[in-house]
Amino acid sequence: MKHPIPDHNPMRGQYSAMADTTPQHFALNVSEGVATVTLNRPERKNPLTFDSYAELRDWFLALQRATDIKAVVLTGAGNNFCSGGDVHEIIGPLTKMSMPELLAFTRMTGALVSAMRACPQPIVAALDGVCAGAGAMMALASDLRLGTPSATVAFLFTRVGLAGADMGACALLPRMIGQGRASELLFTGRAMSATEGHAWGFFNALHDSAALLPAAHKLAAQLAQGPTFAHGMTKTMLHQEWAMTLDQAIEAEAQAQAICMQTQDFRRAYEAFAAKQRPVFEGD
Amino acid sequence: MKHPIPDHNPMRGQYSAMADTTPQHFALNVSEGVATVTLNRPERKNPLTFDSYAELRDWFLALQRATDIKAVVLTGAGNNFCSGGDVHEIIGPLTKMSMPELLAFTRMTGALVSAMRACPQPIVAALDGVCAGAGAMMALASDLRLGTPSATVAFLFTRVGLAGADMGACALLPRMIGQGRASELLFTGRAMSATEGHAWGFFNALHDSAALLPAAHKLAAQLAQGPTFAHGMTKTMLHQEWAMTLDQAIEAEAQAQAICMQTQDFRRAYEAFAAKQRPVFEGD
Amino acid sequence: MKHPIPDHNPMRGQYSAMADTTPQHFALNVSEGVATVTLNRPERKNPLTFDSYAELRDWFLALQRATDIKAVVLTGAGNNFCSGGDVHEIIGPLTKMSMPELLAFTRMTGALVSAMRACPQPIVAALDGVCAGAGAMMALASDLRLGTPSATVAFLFTRVGLAGADMGACALLPRMIGQGRASELLFTGRAMSATEGHAWGFFNALHDSAALLPAAHKLAAQLAQGPTFAHGMTKTMLHQEWAMTLDQAIEAEAQAQAICMQTQDFRRAYEAFAAKQRPVFEGD
Repeated sequence: MKHPIPDHNPMRGQYSAMADTTPQHFALNVSEGVATVTLNRPERKNPLTFDSYAELRDWFLALQRATDIKAVVLTGAGNNFCSGGDVHEIIGPLTKMSMPELLAFTRMTGALVSAMRACPQPIVAALDGVCAGAGAMMALASDLRLGTPSATVAFLFTRVGLAGADMGACALLPRMIGQGRASELLFTGRAMSATEGHAWGFFNALHDSAALLPAAHKLAAQLAQGPTFAHGMTKTMLHQEWAMTLDQAIEAEAQAQAICMQTQDFRRAYEAFAAKQRPVFEGD
Repeated sequence: MKHPIPDHNPMRGQYSAMADTTPQHFALNVSEGVATVTLNRPERKNPLTFDSYAELRDWFLALQRATDIKAVVLTGAGNNFCSGGDVHEIIGPLTKMSMPELLAFTRMTGALVSAMRACPQPIVAALDGVCAGAGAMMALASDLRLGTPSATVAFLFTRVGLAGADMGACALLPRMIGQGRASELLFTGRAMSATEGHAWGFFNALHDSAALLPAAHKLAAQLAQGPTFAHGMTKTMLHQEWAMTLDQAIEAEAQAQAICMQTQDFRRAYEAFAAKQRPVFEGD
Repeated sequence: MKHPIPDHNPMRGQYSAMADTTPQHFALNVSEGVATVTLNRPERKNPLTFDSYAELRDWFLALQRATDIKAVVLTGAGNNFCSGGDVHEIIGPLTKMSMPELLAFTRMTGALVSAMRACPQPIVAALDGVCAGAGAMMALASDLRLGTPSATVAFLFTRVGLAGADMGACALLPRMIGQGRASELLFTGRAMSATEGHAWGFFNALHDSAALLPAAHKLAAQLAQGPTFAHGMTKTMLHQEWAMTLDQAIEAEAQAQAICMQTQDFRRAYEAFAAKQRPVFEGD
């Protein structure tokens, strides 16, 4: 795996190492190019606060330039993922804010989703127990989702008098599980069971609680082995093509894939195949 | 539940009460803010006619300004939902029309779907027996769909020599059940069974015939209890974001949710939570 | 079924017969208006080459003007569909190409998908055994997909160091099976089993190997019986509405269906119904 690009590279100023950053409002562990982000206020089921929203947004934004993180595992401490925005620390203050302040808040939460979609690293969410509100949205903004049989996912916004339209839910959820099921979850706020979530395509797989994080790490490690440049392009194109016509998407992919065909990883794969070996990707 | 807004409100002219209207071509019952619309020519399996199309379109259009209807149940009399456009009353005359007349007809049927999507009230379709052609489209244009084990849904247009492209079917059906399944139903006109419809996300749930309407009313009553302003915003955003990019959708939701955060219902929910009570929403 | 349009028709120069063409790089059989396209290098599991890509693209492009082909069955010889781009004949040369040459290649492969979506004839893919890489994309570009219990579908691009963004995969696959499942298949390159593909809406149905082609031919023959003009409009509108707003789609379908209502096939269907007969469609 490549580490921070060498000093003689003229683009070096565009990149940075992130493995040694020390977030204040979530736990971070980086190993073999896989960053594990853990929401860690387990006594409260890992709610989000103004501070943790902002720090998560900034961290995922910075990932776009990170050279030492190739994939992310997103999880919660204590067998719950996230209970959403904290009622006392977030909802209470929001009821007293002016419109510009409210919009600054909703844009901050939306910016977290945008940052998760914009970074080239695939994000594997490992979801046990409660996954609610903004937590459900972080799960939805991830690329892949692993759950446990006891995971429940609820888009709770309607329960606090708000719209299901929060952080992109009305766009993301219908594409993930279908327009009809998404409508039910967003209008009623009812929990989706793990079985439903798996059958409907929200969860890619279910594992027992003890096996959840190992499975997420195994999947993230596989993705971190590359081809990371190509994975980043896959993620970019899934995002770019969201509202293109099909013919626009075909042309966009012709360009994107032609770029990937000039990477060394493409050549490495071909040479490994010809030598009946397994390719070792390097990300360039 | 709030009733027609008071005389001193400067917006009062924009709103109206609808519970006492008396449709000629379908049955209407309003109770506790839930309107039940029943297609009621059960001896013919409730076909649509030129008159019923027009009246349904006008009724759903007027719902946008109704103050006394918070949710809709859409159903059919006699254990069938709707057999579609009547062969003798609609298809026969259409074969003799000029192009401007044909376009006026297809625009009228499309306008019914648009009106169902544009009203802020969630529409719960309760579907038993036959649900065919334009009936299947009214089901698809609803927000939630409950069925029975014997419900069959068929997009029959191809059987009468027409395209599957009718009233928005080629846009709505793929988002509901996937592009491949939608293609099969639209090209072949074959019936989708209740089991398929449930597995594919068309039906939110199945109930026995006797339990269907009570389940639909229970769900509609729950939605009518609010937060109705927020539910209307959820419906608006599901519609608005249909063809937005994801980043556009995230900004649109930041604005939509900031609006909802200035409603009294949001404050009511917070105060109820703090008092460990169940919130009572009032729709403002 | 109508054959090449008569000499006195002023549009005759726009149309051509294709049943007697003799492709060099795939097998073609036309019977009763159904063309069977068979990838036929079974000893290599029917890989694609530069030549076969180009010939398939040209053949599907020409279908837009064909008068004697009403539906297509797409399949592979020897109980496999297609292993994708040939490693030695395609991938090797690509690793040595200039950017303009690479883009010419990716545009050619994308043009094959565009041509399959642009022809008015429904395409039924009959998929046994291996369905990989560009082969999986040809399957995805078809209108309907029948498989066998041993069919496996893999978007292998990532395995050779490339992006999952190839020939429109990042647009087509999420609409077919959902954004989450598509993300997994495109990032990991893992095979989708036949059972998964059926449950997820990729396969419309599964049949035993011996029954696969007969089932595909039966379905294609049914579609070839028409109404072919309307089927072509269904296919056009499924494509056109890909990125429209719902209201745009409703207006587009009002126009499309009004056109279909002036066909003779619509009148034929009505008259057959009135006479309690089965309609015989003629495609005009």
